Amino acid sequence: MRVKLTLEYEGTPYFGWQLQAGQDSIQGQLESALAQIFGTAIRVHGAGRTDAGVHARGQVAAVTLPRDFDPLELKRALNAMLPPAIAIVLSEQVPEEFDPRRDARSRVYEYRVLNRETRSALEHRFAWLIRDALDFNALQTAARVYVGEHDFAAFRTLGSEEKTTTRRVIESRWTRAGHILTYRVEANAFLRHMVRTMVAAMIDAGRGKIRTHDIEKMLESHDRSIAPAPAPACGLFLIEVRY
Amino acid sequence: MRVKLTLEYEGTPYFGWQLQAGQDSIQGQLESALAQIFGTAIRVHGAGRTDAGVHARGQVAAVTLPRDFDPLELKRALNAMLPPAIAIVLSEQVPEEFDPRRDARSRVYEYRVLNRETRSALEHRFAWLIRDALDFNALQTAARVYVGEHDFAAFRTLGSEEKTTTRRVIESRWTRAGHILTYRVEANAFLRHMVRTMVAAMIDAGRGKIRTHDIEKMLESHDRSIAPAPAPACGLFLIEVRY
Repeated sequence: MRVKLTLEYEGTPYFGWQLQAGQDSIQGQLESALAQIFGTAIRVHGAGRTDAGVHARGQVAAVTLPRDFDPLELKRALNAMLPPAIAIVLSEQVPEEFDPRRDARSRVYEYRVLNRETRSALEHRFAWLIRDALDFNALQTAARVYVGEHDFAAFRTLGSEEKTTTRRVIESRWTRAGHILTYRVEANAFLRHMVRTMVAAMIDAGRGKIRTHDIEKMLESHDRSIAPAPAPACGLFLIEVRY
Repeated sequence: MRVKLTLEYEGTPYFGWQLQAGQDSIQGQLESALAQIFGTAIRVHGAGRTDAGVHARGQVAAVTLPRDFDPLELKRALNAMLPPAIAIVLSEQVPEEFDPRRDARSRVYEYRVLNRETRSALEHRFAWLIRDALDFNALQTAARVYVGEHDFAAFRTLGSEEKTTTRRVIESRWTRAGHILTYRVEANAFLRHMVRTMVAAMIDAGRGKIRTHDIEKMLESHDRSIAPAPAPACGLFLIEVRY
């Protein structure tokens, strides 16, 4: 029996989504809880990896259970066993062939920036603090550059092994609420560190260090050394995986 | 030289605002940082106490410094020394006679409720999870009962020693954004546990367990044993102290 799980997590205490020897990961926590419930090792397949410190409101994972089990009961049992920073929000039976990564049509991420002079006691785990004044219009104009199909080779992490670096960006825009600026981006798929590098380039534009045209040139260059270092992980949230 | 400090803090890791022997408090952290900067013990006076787990966006404290010191420099020095869960957002010179508690005209608190079926990995420190459906109109109607001058004796914590239990509520209303319900209340002053007990009574009304009329009766009773136990500390935020 195949079950699709939708997860929420705070990334701060974990070494990212993916299981790694000797490290505490979200996938590892989920597999431990499942092993306790079913008395046997169960492999969890995620829609994608999130790095250490990255949060999720709607990560998706799939598991094949060794026996029939009410999906709602599974959600309750997992939420009773998982640590407070990981929660199952939805649990649904899906066809046996469901593949959370390959079946995904698109992913939605948000990146939160706290734009004020002093650090925050409440937002430090959930936003990137930018003390300099940011030009909101420059951020918004820069965000539009990413929309459409582009080769994002300049925005990936070095050493990643994706076959193609072309991705289709469907939505890319900023909203503002008080001191919090939120960037929302939807694409068919993302390269590793892609959102965080896109954000870092836009913030450079918002600070007036570069112009929109420089971001166009970064995209066209396909050269990783031209784009800035990725923005910190703490501001990034995987919001939704769409099927 | 007297300085007014406006503070933000996450209450989770602390035993409340007030200095207590053998416990880690926000006042204690602030006094330690000041002692390091000035090389002498400096007493911090707060506008009011917040209990363990209660957060603040705008707690106010005052300190008398042993020598002249640029308030902006003081803010920077304190923010460099205080732990991540405590931050100084404003630092201003005030007249020597400034008393943060007695000079306050009013205080504003907010209480956040997460109203959904499953627990949240991101909100567990910052909201009270209510799984039952809540009647928003019932919450709003109940909130109106508190507006005006009332004797809140039924809503205080047992054993508190305030001389008078009459308080004037200036604003009292709920707003809703997705699954988050936020109660905002302003009053000239509050009794200990007053906001949390008011919230608990309104949630009982939102659940349909009691009616608005029952909250009126609680107020009129002046009897602590009639009102419910206070709502959890994690949902409460001291937003502002007005002068």
